[in-house]
Amino acid sequence: MASSRVLLFQFYPLLLLPSLLYPVSSISPHKIPRLSPFPKEALILKHPDDIFSESDMSKDFKTYFYEQTLDHFNYAPQSYATFRQRYVVNTKYWGGPNSNSPILAYLGAEASLDGDLEAVGFLTDNAPHFKSLSVFIEHRYYGKSIPFGTMEEAMKNDTTRGYFSSAQALADYAEILLHIKQKFSAHNSPIIVVGGSYGGMLASWFRLKYPHIALGALASSAPILYFDDITPENGYYSIVTKDFEEVSESCYQTIKESWAEINEVASKPGGLSLLSQRFNTCSHLNYSDELKNFLDSMYSTAAQYNHPPNYPVTMVCKGIDGAPEGTDIIGRIFAGVVSYRGKRTCYDTNDYNYPSETSVGWQWQTCSEMVIPIGRGQNDTMFPPSPFSLYQFIKDCNDSFGVPPRPHWITTYYGGHDIKLVLKRFGSNIIFSNGLRDPYSSGGVLEDLSESIVAVKTLNGSHCLDILQADKTDPEWLVMQRNIEIKIVEEWLTRYYADLQALKN
Amino acid sequence: MASSRVLLFQFYPLLLLPSLLYPVSSISPHKIPRLSPFPKEALILKHPDDIFSESDMSKDFKTYFYEQTLDHFNYAPQSYATFRQRYVVNTKYWGGPNSNSPILAYLGAEASLDGDLEAVGFLTDNAPHFKSLSVFIEHRYYGKSIPFGTMEEAMKNDTTRGYFSSAQALADYAEILLHIKQKFSAHNSPIIVVGGSYGGMLASWFRLKYPHIALGALASSAPILYFDDITPENGYYSIVTKDFEEVSESCYQTIKESWAEINEVASKPGGLSLLSQRFNTCSHLNYSDELKNFLDSMYSTAAQYNHPPNYPVTMVCKGIDGAPEGTDIIGRIFAGVVSYRGKRTCYDTNDYNYPSETSVGWQWQTCSEMVIPIGRGQNDTMFPPSPFSLYQFIKDCNDSFGVPPRPHWITTYYGGHDIKLVLKRFGSNIIFSNGLRDPYSSGGVLEDLSESIVAVKTLNGSHCLDILQADKTDPEWLVMQRNIEIKIVEEWLTRYYADLQALKN
Repeated sequence: MASSRVLLFQFYPLLLLPSLLYPVSSISPHKIPRLSPFPKEALILKHPDDIFSESDMSKDFKTYFYEQTLDHFNYAPQSYATFRQRYVVNTKYWGGPNSNSPILAYLGAEASLDGDLEAVGFLTDNAPHFKSLSVFIEHRYYGKSIPFGTMEEAMKNDTTRGYFSSAQALADYAEILLHIKQKFSAHNSPIIVVGGSYGGMLASWFRLKYPHIALGALASSAPILYFDDITPENGYYSIVTKDFEEVSESCYQTIKESWAEINEVASKPGGLSLLSQRFNTCSHLNYSDELKNFLDSMYSTAAQYNHPPNYPVTMVCKGIDGAPEGTDIIGRIFAGVVSYRGKRTCYDTNDYNYPSETSVGWQWQTCSEMVIPIGRGQNDTMFPPSPFSLYQFIKDCNDSFGVPPRPHWITTYYGGHDIKLVLKRFGSNIIFSNGLRDPYSSGGVLEDLSESIVAVKTLNGSHCLDILQADKTDPEWLVMQRNIEIKIVEEWLTRYYADLQALKN
Repeated sequence: MASSRVLLFQFYPLLLLPSLLYPVSSISPHKIPRLSPFPKEALILKHPDDIFSESDMSKDFKTYFYEQTLDHFNYAPQSYATFRQRYVVNTKYWGGPNSNSPILAYLGAEASLDGDLEAVGFLTDNAPHFKSLSVFIEHRYYGKSIPFGTMEEAMKNDTTRGYFSSAQALADYAEILLHIKQKFSAHNSPIIVVGGSYGGMLASWFRLKYPHIALGALASSAPILYFDDITPENGYYSIVTKDFEEVSESCYQTIKESWAEINEVASKPGGLSLLSQRFNTCSHLNYSDELKNFLDSMYSTAAQYNHPPNYPVTMVCKGIDGAPEGTDIIGRIFAGVVSYRGKRTCYDTNDYNYPSETSVGWQWQTCSEMVIPIGRGQNDTMFPPSPFSLYQFIKDCNDSFGVPPRPHWITTYYGGHDIKLVLKRFGSNIIFSNGLRDPYSSGGVLEDLSESIVAVKTLNGSHCLDILQADKTDPEWLVMQRNIEIKIVEEWLTRYYADLQALKN
């Protein structure tokens, strides 16, 4: 079920930093790929009516709104303004008030909560086992939790978007979780926070910053080390490249050679028309970058969301390698597109660029604090070089938003440098889970940092796979990964209850 | 030397919540006694010229200013404003750049740094031993680190004072410490943060929130549990009472009976004139509260700063008990005043009420987030009852500042509830030091929470004594307390260097 269900959910488009602000031809090379648990295809491949929405929710889910403080860190009157923040609770399997049964809380990321409620199966799938209360909290400025009414209104000026930050979001979660403990008479119920991707970063940071509220964190595919210079900037695209190379050497070679081929064709008179025709684009290409960015996004998305049972990278390569003998490189690349995206009347090279609440929000977040320096060098990936220029990135963001990013704030506030040295003897109860085929795993924690800050990784896994809804067709390594995670959480809970008991005696 | 030196420093007056805003007669019972390491007498007993100032600093201290971000948690353009924040560095005994020698960093509290540089001896006294760099950082909105120019300007309106909070202060320290590491080529130098009183809270919170910046914290006399209902509200005054009772049962009894006696006299025609005369007040008493508040503050200050070798509580009781036989209660109380404050031409009952930068700043801090509920019940102390009313406190603060306090924010952001359960298996390297004669020790951590989050306490100690400058006359228990602290810090450092070495291999 899971793999097909995932496709039901709203997609959160790839963040192309200035894609909404500049014509496509001038797209900055400094794009920071999306960080959501679900692939864009979820939306592309489905009829809009099929998209899961709150009304589809099982009656076991109940929606609440919390009157949230706009600015937790300031005491000016305007900071006291409030907004309605959505959270959803499922009590079906919970042990009940005063039972001390645990709370599993999903910390929303850069998207509406709608898609997460069913797709993020970890909470609901394991609720019977843990007798846990399932809580989903929406991130401020997304979905139904937008201060100032609408996203348009909220993002309109530099004052209203100033409150849109990760530290404020964590403080929101702190307040709501304390509120829930009170509301559900769950004072001694341990809370385990769960998140994926950016939400996974939030989960791990929440355990570190609010250990008095969360007993532990499951941080799935959280690239908390992809800041400053901790992770090499080509980490992301190196893994995309490796994914393709491992599936098929010839596929990888074809892609690697294709960029020069596309440039070659485009540079000739009528070349863009020819490319438009050969790729059956829905509108005529004005720049070869339109095509190249589309392909770049497609390969990256395929790699990031290389989920079973379909394994998009394999699908792309099946097309490329399977083209009739004698097919030229351009033809093979197009065959890859068709194989992955399906047969269509035409192919929209803007598919990965359409603005959405998530693309707008995430663009702001990356342009303010979530500066993830992803780039590529000369010949270190199957892509053309595109080094990350912090200078250019800051300039672009400043041009767009009137304020420069603070590229070192994340490591100042949350850490990241020398993480082994720091967390070896500080903190506890964090699982960093990763699939090593996920390009973002390059910025993840892949080794145990201590006895209880541990890495759980799979060779074949992709982005956030472990927290998605379990399915009968799941491969054994995925089932095992989840079982390990459940076992670790159980250990945390057992120790907690023993400590609680000891203190009572 | 220490005890006399301490008297040289600027005093930070007792916070009487609305004392600056209301006539004395309507002083709210909800006063939150000051939290500074030094007693008021420091100022009262000395000529203004004797107050230590930056120009007196030894040439080993060098002053710097850091261009600090006004609002770390917001991305509106106005948040990007900066202000000059002062810090002072002493390199005299430091191991030098790239030596990995430690940094001891004093986190300034609700006062100018001027007094701290010499008084807080822990850093300088131990620099030769640790070969440590000594750093003192001033808290925003105090001393020479005031955004918007002057304190008057900064506190004038609700926008400019909105940035005045503990979370912003900790972020300031984070930025400056990272800056210092870079500036002094001290990348691998472990940082130990040190603070007293409110600054001690900041030190412990800093280790919890920024473990990637501080390896450990010495939190002296930090009442981090005096929030919400964690500590009984009469904790503070119970210890003041106990201090007097332990010194002299008759002294304690006299004080206990004196309040009714004062009321009795005051209620008679000409009573206030009589009291003015008998207490030799500098100006005529208009309300008996003026006298009672003065005495309340005097007893509390004596208890809080009951430092050797003079032991102010003993001084007060010597006066009270030593009055000639037949002296009535009023006369004995006055004898206590004279014994402690010295012979004067007259006694100013406003001595503890004069506004200063610290009183103004601390009043704002307690009225925004540092809501320490101190009160007294019926007959549980030697003072008249004065229960803490959160309702009234909120109302008073709201009336004064136009915004209500957020009384639960401190425990939401920093924790405090169930601290044993929470920190038993989270965090490391914090010393909570307390002297059990310090009334604020009632809100301190007095038991080890884990192997490395430990309590170091002395039966006879008072407020922040351990971090003040060492002196030959220091009693043995104080010398021992400091030695234990040094030994613990040494252990942290040894383990850190071993970890560092292991990671290099």
